[in-house]
Amino acid sequence: MPNPVEENCRVILVDEKGNRILLHAIDEVQKIKGLGVYNPKELIGKDYWESIDISGKKFMILSPSIFDKISAIQRKAQIILPKDGMFIIFYCDVKSGDMVVEGGAGSGALTILLANSVRPNGKVISYEKREDFMRIAKRNVESAGLGDYVEFRRGDVTSTIDETGIDAVVLDIPNPWDAVNNALSGLKLGGHLACYSPTMNQVEKTVNEMRKFGLEWIKTLETMQREMVVGEKGMRPSFDALGHTGYVTFGRKIR
Amino acid sequence: MPNPVEENCRVILVDEKGNRILLHAIDEVQKIKGLGVYNPKELIGKDYWESIDISGKKFMILSPSIFDKISAIQRKAQIILPKDGMFIIFYCDVKSGDMVVEGGAGSGALTILLANSVRPNGKVISYEKREDFMRIAKRNVESAGLGDYVEFRRGDVTSTIDETGIDAVVLDIPNPWDAVNNALSGLKLGGHLACYSPTMNQVEKTVNEMRKFGLEWIKTLETMQREMVVGEKGMRPSFDALGHTGYVTFGRKIR
Amino acid sequence: MPNPVEENCRVILVDEKGNRILLHAIDEVQKIKGLGVYNPKELIGKDYWESIDISGKKFMILSPSIFDKISAIQRKAQIILPKDGMFIIFYCDVKSGDMVVEGGAGSGALTILLANSVRPNGKVISYEKREDFMRIAKRNVESAGLGDYVEFRRGDVTSTIDETGIDAVVLDIPNPWDAVNNALSGLKLGGHLACYSPTMNQVEKTVNEMRKFGLEWIKTLETMQREMVVGEKGMRPSFDALGHTGYVTFGRKIR
Amino acid sequence: MPNPVEENCRVILVDEKGNRILLHAIDEVQKIKGLGVYNPKELIGKDYWESIDISGKKFMILSPSIFDKISAIQRKAQIILPKDGMFIIFYCDVKSGDMVVEGGAGSGALTILLANSVRPNGKVISYEKREDFMRIAKRNVESAGLGDYVEFRRGDVTSTIDETGIDAVVLDIPNPWDAVNNALSGLKLGGHLACYSPTMNQVEKTVNEMRKFGLEWIKTLETMQREMVVGEKGMRPSFDALGHTGYVTFGRKIR
Repeated sequence: MPNPVEENCRVILVDEKGNRILLHAIDEVQKIKGLGVYNPKELIGKDYWESIDISGKKFMILSPSIFDKISAIQRKAQIILPKDGMFIIFYCDVKSGDMVVEGGAGSGALTILLANSVRPNGKVISYEKREDFMRIAKRNVESAGLGDYVEFRRGDVTSTIDETGIDAVVLDIPNPWDAVNNALSGLKLGGHLACYSPTMNQVEKTVNEMRKFGLEWIKTLETMQREMVVGEKGMRPSFDALGHTGYVTFGRKIR
Repeated sequence: MPNPVEENCRVILVDEKGNRILLHAIDEVQKIKGLGVYNPKELIGKDYWESIDISGKKFMILSPSIFDKISAIQRKAQIILPKDGMFIIFYCDVKSGDMVVEGGAGSGALTILLANSVRPNGKVISYEKREDFMRIAKRNVESAGLGDYVEFRRGDVTSTIDETGIDAVVLDIPNPWDAVNNALSGLKLGGHLACYSPTMNQVEKTVNEMRKFGLEWIKTLETMQREMVVGEKGMRPSFDALGHTGYVTFGRKIR
Repeated sequence: MPNPVEENCRVILVDEKGNRILLHAIDEVQKIKGLGVYNPKELIGKDYWESIDISGKKFMILSPSIFDKISAIQRKAQIILPKDGMFIIFYCDVKSGDMVVEGGAGSGALTILLANSVRPNGKVISYEKREDFMRIAKRNVESAGLGDYVEFRRGDVTSTIDETGIDAVVLDIPNPWDAVNNALSGLKLGGHLACYSPTMNQVEKTVNEMRKFGLEWIKTLETMQREMVVGEKGMRPSFDALGHTGYVTFGRKIR
Repeated sequence: MPNPVEENCRVILVDEKGNRILLHAIDEVQKIKGLGVYNPKELIGKDYWESIDISGKKFMILSPSIFDKISAIQRKAQIILPKDGMFIIFYCDVKSGDMVVEGGAGSGALTILLANSVRPNGKVISYEKREDFMRIAKRNVESAGLGDYVEFRRGDVTSTIDETGIDAVVLDIPNPWDAVNNALSGLKLGGHLACYSPTMNQVEKTVNEMRKFGLEWIKTLETMQREMVVGEKGMRPSFDALGHTGYVTFGRKIR
């Protein structure tokens, strides 16, 4: 099945040694490391997995995975990493067809992960009160080819959440406790709430607010990930480590 | 939209204090903690979220989340926990519509997670060489309401993988290196391979085999998760901890 | 150099297969697993490393290490584990000859570690307000053969610390912030303060109090330890894990 | 008790805001950040805790703690961090008066920790086969004021260990298994062996060699440490993290 590169999408070029160059298929002549001066729009219409020649060098056009898409985003705010985002998807039971409301789009990293999980029939509604963040998040989601599954709303979930019958509400704002009430009004019976926070004090306040509002199965998790390195001298964990990102607190609406 | 309990599915009953009783909607009179003697088939046909009376006590019928479904499975072999499984889904780019081959069904915990991610149009093909494991995995997948998205095959992925054009192959067998060749033959260009192994020696052998076969972006991860507890004296990580489970090694076929 | 077993000390008997039996050299006929009915006082006066016969079985008399001594203590309160205690010793610069004040003896586990580090010329002063804890701590310290280096005081460090010129003050009480002022009065210039607390709320209050009192190089650490297992199928981290114990907060008096 | 700064020792100057400048009390005019051009030999003979004026700024002369001494060392090889070193001291039962043999002095970081623990009557014998490492290690140990407790030997512990009656042997070499036999010959009955290795493969070989030679209570540990940050928004683990350093394997000679 032919599968052509579309405008505005991410494309990976792989040379014969396996080096990757991540490109954005837009009309903009630019200097690209490993390619020289190049206009990525020339890739539009070519098929993924096709081999092409650029300045005498052979490349394969590779379709980016969800990992590549998230790695490629333009970051403005601190993003929610997949190590945390995948557990939001699991504990919120996010699946194909769901309607998910996100409070705080940030740079759109979690939005991409959520959109990828609800497609092809679900929808992510992403509230963001800052115009600049919303613009970046929107661009990142579109470049990931997931624009059809996301609706951005300029707004603050602590003031209002317009939707009802929501499957899951995910909050990445400094004061998630102020949005618990709105989240509960929008959630369907059995729906899930997740709040991402860097500090323990935020978690404590969130948990207490969730308890006050009668959410069930409240649980807070911290996820740590290490890369293992297989080298000539043997295998060991990486000398580099990922520091703290955030805690995620979950609860379920059952009344 | 009415949504009745079907035969053979998992059902959660929640009493007025928030206690959960997990049931299996089959015809079998049994003594159930918190319920007394009861036949769960009586739940079949009732709607989720309906309130019912059992022996004078009020319960709500709750639809189980993916977390509940995995917690409820009957275990024979050691299972792949969601903390590891969700990263297999992320790094293998598993999404709605994909065809995923699993080598080693075990008790079906990962099968459930994969099936949940490929629906409604994708498919998981799960190879298992032991008849007894396959029977349990099948029952667990069906009880999770995901039977339509999984095909079980009695067989050993180190001998053969019949499918081609596969999006991702996931191996949970003691000797994944022996199946790398078959996995590569079945994977489409750009497809992902993941191998789950408890020991570093298995990881090392797997990584070396993946390198030999020219897979790209080989990466091994260990994921650790801690629960945080908010109590009267304040917040802290749990005094209980989850020990080691396994490492997951990833690679991508790009030639 | 002959080195006889003294009354009231810990002794380890090792059989020919390497099994250890930990004994307390006191006059009390008892049933001991692996030995039968035996009076450990019979060991008093024998030399460590001597071989002896008990009911026809051969044993070697082994001198307990600091690890054995701490493993052997009778526990009443939650103890400070060596994984945390060794960092108290490091960051408080505890060394041979130091005078250390401990607030909250608990079961005496940390007392043993501290006493072991200040000998032969230093001293640990251990305050404990509960009579029952003090009695147990004292017995544990004596059984560890370290009674000469510890002085127990019935009292509460939040009310008073009598000593001055102290090298380090270590607090294991629920409200360490209430003793910061007393600790500072007793510490010599350049002396160190360490506070052990399970919850983040305690840490936060302690850090803020230390800042208020002008301590320098305030630092809070969490230490995690995993055992690695080498088995027939290869090497991996242990499936069992140690959960959270506590955080330790350090500060130095420089004015 | 007056306690004057000696030549070649480490000194810390603290200004009135609590900033630290770490100096080496030698005769060498140098440009020092925060001080300008200065000759640290001017500090020799002054008392610790004395206040001095340098170019019109007030400083206090502070005695470095063991933490400062190790932070100040000149590094050539990768050092064993205190987080690992303190467990070597604990599980090897290193204490005042002990004789410890170190195989591989490296930059002398662990040597400093060991010397600090055996004083005033013990001794560390440190073997190092590289002349350049030995010179650096020696200088670091002397600057830490611990030269009296360490004897350096140019040599390779896999060839010979001359001492007998050793309390503990600590190996930080790439092939510790090749020195297990020599270590055992030198250790007294009941003595401890510790081997530090970055990779799992080294651990596996070491454990198997220790088992072959009949050491008892073989145990491998990994220690992880996180700093906690108390900020305006609350408390959380540090966003920076310490990656993997090494595993330490312990065993005891009991026959």
